[in-house]
Amino acid sequence: MNVNYPNGKRYIPKESKTVSNANSKLNLTYSNRGMTLEEDLNETNEYYRERRIAVIHKKPTPVQIVQVDYPKRSAAVIKEAYFKQASTTDYNGIYKGKYIDFEAKETQNPTSFPLKNFHQHQIDHMEDVLNQGGICFVILRFSKYEQVYLLEAAHVLTFWRRMTNGGRKSITKAEIEQYGYLIPLGFQPRIDYIKVIDTLFYSA
Amino acid sequence: MNVNYPNGKRYIPKESKTVSNANSKLNLTYSNRGMTLEEDLNETNEYYRERRIAVIHKKPTPVQIVQVDYPKRSAAVIKEAYFKQASTTDYNGIYKGKYIDFEAKETQNPTSFPLKNFHQHQIDHMEDVLNQGGICFVILRFSKYEQVYLLEAAHVLTFWRRMTNGGRKSITKAEIEQYGYLIPLGFQPRIDYIKVIDTLFYSA
Repeated sequence: MNVNYPNGKRYIPKESKTVSNANSKLNLTYSNRGMTLEEDLNETNEYYRERRIAVIHKKPTPVQIVQVDYPKRSAAVIKEAYFKQASTTDYNGIYKGKYIDFEAKETQNPTSFPLKNFHQHQIDHMEDVLNQGGICFVILRFSKYEQVYLLEAAHVLTFWRRMTNGGRKSITKAEIEQYGYLIPLGFQPRIDYIKVIDTLFYSA
Repeated sequence: MNVNYPNGKRYIPKESKTVSNANSKLNLTYSNRGMTLEEDLNETNEYYRERRIAVIHKKPTPVQIVQVDYPKRSAAVIKEAYFKQASTTDYNGIYKGKYIDFEAKETQNPTSFPLKNFHQHQIDHMEDVLNQGGICFVILRFSKYEQVYLLEAAHVLTFWRRMTNGGRKSITKAEIEQYGYLIPLGFQPRIDYIKVIDTLFYSA
């Protein structure tokens, strides 16, 4: 089980158990907080914005509004609406002048990440962003291990194509460990994905 | 009445009437279509995406969802929700690797653009984006004249500060003509704002 850390060094634990041991301290302070991946990323992005590190926001959930009431002397009430499929990824923004774009998903599956977490629109969008020279990736959380990985969109596209060509419908955890990067987790920021971006795109 | 065209040349009409004459052809083909500024920009962005010119999307309208019903064998229905104030501008994306961010507003006012069309969150966001080296601006439509201007965020911030310091609560049309750029309108794309961006940021 080889893990790429953002410092570019390969982390080779002595045995599989070491990984969960290494995370046991984190488990106390971090994982049992009942926070969702979205909440953690929102707090992380707020941390980045407050410190002028990066300006990244989650897009609002797309909703098809059907009926709105306008009661006198109070706010408009949406009385009927439906969830729409997003046409892009959920998060985007700017870091050091560069366009940043990502989707974040979690799975309970201990051994692989099901590709049904993404849909064709999002895959097309990732391809569009890469064509324009943007920085595009996914953030994948294995909730069972409290591990969060950054996987560049180029790899996601490769695994997506493998599926559409009749191959497996998921990315194995081993593949994510090989091609992705384990994101440092902490208290502030919670999911320090900019650290990985720095190593990938801004270090010598 | 001096207008900056995206080619950098100053357009000086012989008399005021010339401008409306120059637009009369556009009025036939363009303005009487009953399209909103948002629809025009969505079609423009689709045009850019299809031709791989730029990847720019409008963010969904932010909604605070209060109650959702999950009927058997049919889609979840949102039964109670409220409109939330946006924490950012409405449009963002990527052009030639660069982060692009803008807000679009229209006014019926023939002589000035009221600043109440913006709110503090959006102004703060524009400042954040400029600090990160992004390309940030507003698109302003004077619906009375079918004129659409691009005004860089730096100027918007200046006029906003003038207001918060007790000055006028709007940007005069003359100021927008002086500091902004008239965007070419057409059939495809409808509001070719990338042409202005090219002149401002990518031409020698």
